[in-house]
Amino acid sequence: MRIGVFGGDGFIGWPASLHLANQGHEVAIIDNLSRRQIDLELGVQSLTPIESTQERIKIWERISSRRIHFERLDLANEYERVKRWLEDFEPDCVVHLAQQRAAPYSMKSDRHKAYTVNNNVNATHNLLNAIVELGLDVHLVHLGTMGVYGYSDIGATIPEGYLPVQIANDDGSLHTQEILYPANPGSVYHMTKCLDQLMLAFYAKNDQLRLTDLHQGIVWGTQTAETKRHPSLINRFDYDGEYGTVLNRFLIQAAIDYPLTVHGTGGQTRAFIHIQDSVRCIELAVTNPPERGERTKIFNQMTETHRIRDLAKRVSELSGAPIEFMTNPRREADENELRVSNEKFLSLGLNPITLDEGLLEELVEIARKHKSRIDRSRIPAQSAWTKEIGKKLTNIETIEQVRKRA
Amino acid sequence: MRIGVFGGDGFIGWPASLHLANQGHEVAIIDNLSRRQIDLELGVQSLTPIESTQERIKIWERISSRRIHFERLDLANEYERVKRWLEDFEPDCVVHLAQQRAAPYSMKSDRHKAYTVNNNVNATHNLLNAIVELGLDVHLVHLGTMGVYGYSDIGATIPEGYLPVQIANDDGSLHTQEILYPANPGSVYHMTKCLDQLMLAFYAKNDQLRLTDLHQGIVWGTQTAETKRHPSLINRFDYDGEYGTVLNRFLIQAAIDYPLTVHGTGGQTRAFIHIQDSVRCIELAVTNPPERGERTKIFNQMTETHRIRDLAKRVSELSGAPIEFMTNPRREADENELRVSNEKFLSLGLNPITLDEGLLEELVEIARKHKSRIDRSRIPAQSAWTKEIGKKLTNIETIEQVRKRA
Repeated sequence: MRIGVFGGDGFIGWPASLHLANQGHEVAIIDNLSRRQIDLELGVQSLTPIESTQERIKIWERISSRRIHFERLDLANEYERVKRWLEDFEPDCVVHLAQQRAAPYSMKSDRHKAYTVNNNVNATHNLLNAIVELGLDVHLVHLGTMGVYGYSDIGATIPEGYLPVQIANDDGSLHTQEILYPANPGSVYHMTKCLDQLMLAFYAKNDQLRLTDLHQGIVWGTQTAETKRHPSLINRFDYDGEYGTVLNRFLIQAAIDYPLTVHGTGGQTRAFIHIQDSVRCIELAVTNPPERGERTKIFNQMTETHRIRDLAKRVSELSGAPIEFMTNPRREADENELRVSNEKFLSLGLNPITLDEGLLEELVEIARKHKSRIDRSRIPAQSAWTKEIGKKLTNIETIEQVRKRA
Repeated sequence: MRIGVFGGDGFIGWPASLHLANQGHEVAIIDNLSRRQIDLELGVQSLTPIESTQERIKIWERISSRRIHFERLDLANEYERVKRWLEDFEPDCVVHLAQQRAAPYSMKSDRHKAYTVNNNVNATHNLLNAIVELGLDVHLVHLGTMGVYGYSDIGATIPEGYLPVQIANDDGSLHTQEILYPANPGSVYHMTKCLDQLMLAFYAKNDQLRLTDLHQGIVWGTQTAETKRHPSLINRFDYDGEYGTVLNRFLIQAAIDYPLTVHGTGGQTRAFIHIQDSVRCIELAVTNPPERGERTKIFNQMTETHRIRDLAKRVSELSGAPIEFMTNPRREADENELRVSNEKFLSLGLNPITLDEGLLEELVEIARKHKSRIDRSRIPAQSAWTKEIGKKLTNIETIEQVRKRA
């Protein structure tokens, strides 16, 4: 299969591209390298030293004898080049990961909110628009988020995208209808993924595009079978307050003897998936497209749920790192239950990697190995969901000082 | 009250600005004049000769002694100027009409789709973003569309924005929840109004903005009490295939002895509102804001529903114009029922203007008066919802020839 991976230089995109290439697919990475530019903007770097895109592609080719194509292209802002690229490469499938993907970054300032909305919406729409304009029958796999569902408990297991509901007719009788699960985003970033859902729904209906949406949980881990094959293929590992996601952040904090910082009560329950399963799910989605005329095929791309304070406790027990509770920079419920269906990937053969397999220790090891690259001052959350919360947040920047005093 | 009308030079914006000014409010029009530029792009003009924005504001001031401010500003692309304007003018309320508003134009080509998405999404988001950034407690009234609901019959009267549904818990019991009515847009334009809804919902939740969304039906008529006060205050009246809406189009066709062109079977049922009621509803929405912390306040801004072929029949009986059925350029159901609640505006004192009041004849008169300005070749629909439909549409451009032969 010929597969274009938009955003193929990023945290999911790079291992996904290698995984798909390793399965024998003809892979092209299309990326504007925005994630690397944001590192420059924020003045932070991946915990792991990553090579340039061109260099790591060259090394992959040397060890695998498989060439990955690379096109530097801005999906959100270069529509005509997107069209030309699609015409030239003639993909059977495009995997769309070319979006700003951090909730805290999306809430950092008005400029970051505007960038996230403009970039993410136009990226998705340009791809849909170009596929229709060129009349291509290409399967589009979009990376969404579990966050589109929100975390208010509806007393039911979250289904895969579509929720059957009963609606009262004017005569009082009820009829059942299956609707797109009501969107309830918790940040500007999550909001853009909800906007994406509606755009996908429209293009599936009006133009019979074949579309898949992956509602992914929080990804943990950094390495996959392919990225382990050479030191220069190593995947990025974000630890900073904007891009570091919760479990990976705890593991890094543990590795450098920094307290595990829990936001609020830690009563939030979230869905998780290991990076290896994430790329496996993308492959399963790519090779199991919907039929033309079907509505968007939605998968919940997660394997387990955990309460944040339980995760902190676990990592604390593993490493001896203390736990610190701090003001939650987000506006969200203190506590929530979460039950999620992931039947569709299980039925396609996904065999989930869980937290119990020694992978936590492996990650702490990776973090220890590269700990000289960590700027401790960049670990705390910097972005507040509102200006009022932001005022309370100033204390957390001194959490290390607090600890030293203790 | 100090009111900024974004898009105040357009078809709804101009009469709404005059109406609000006439009620004693301090009104500012903020507009990038994009609607006039689209006239240039399409090579058509309003049936009615409209003055420049500056000129008609000057005339309004002369006859009313009330000054309307004017700022030429591109809401979607000049975020910093938007912020500055909000700081300077200090509005109590902003009415947001600054969006590309024609479904056919939004489907005209990939360029028009991209423009509509980019312009409409960024316009709404820039306004929300700036209000939050500046910490203003300003009420935002957004013009949406009845089209967010879609036209698939759910066997029930369409409520005002929120639908109570029953959801099954894991134990089989049911609980009731009120959700945002499931979006089902029929064009890229309508899709953008659905995206707006989600952005409004997020900003109401995260930042407690006071937001109102008006789900407006198809507007007919052209003049209001204020635009009638001087010939140079006349409102625009679109008759072309892109911007002319169905009832106004029939009336123009009747005036110039052109067949009334019905798309498909004409079995589509749609919601309608007269322009005078539209501006009255905007005033009612402006003066009845939601509380801080409330969800978006949604009104159905429509007064009656009609089946398209019934409207055609009515105009045909009034004028003697024949009816022609043609290929429907849109992808939509041939026939649909539509029952809509508009209790909220009725309870605030709206006294609907209906089709039975001689206003149809008045519009035919206006059209006859200006008929030398009509380019008959621009009347048929030009934009198809898909390329396949577009191939069938070529015949309709020769409908006049067909008629001459008959």
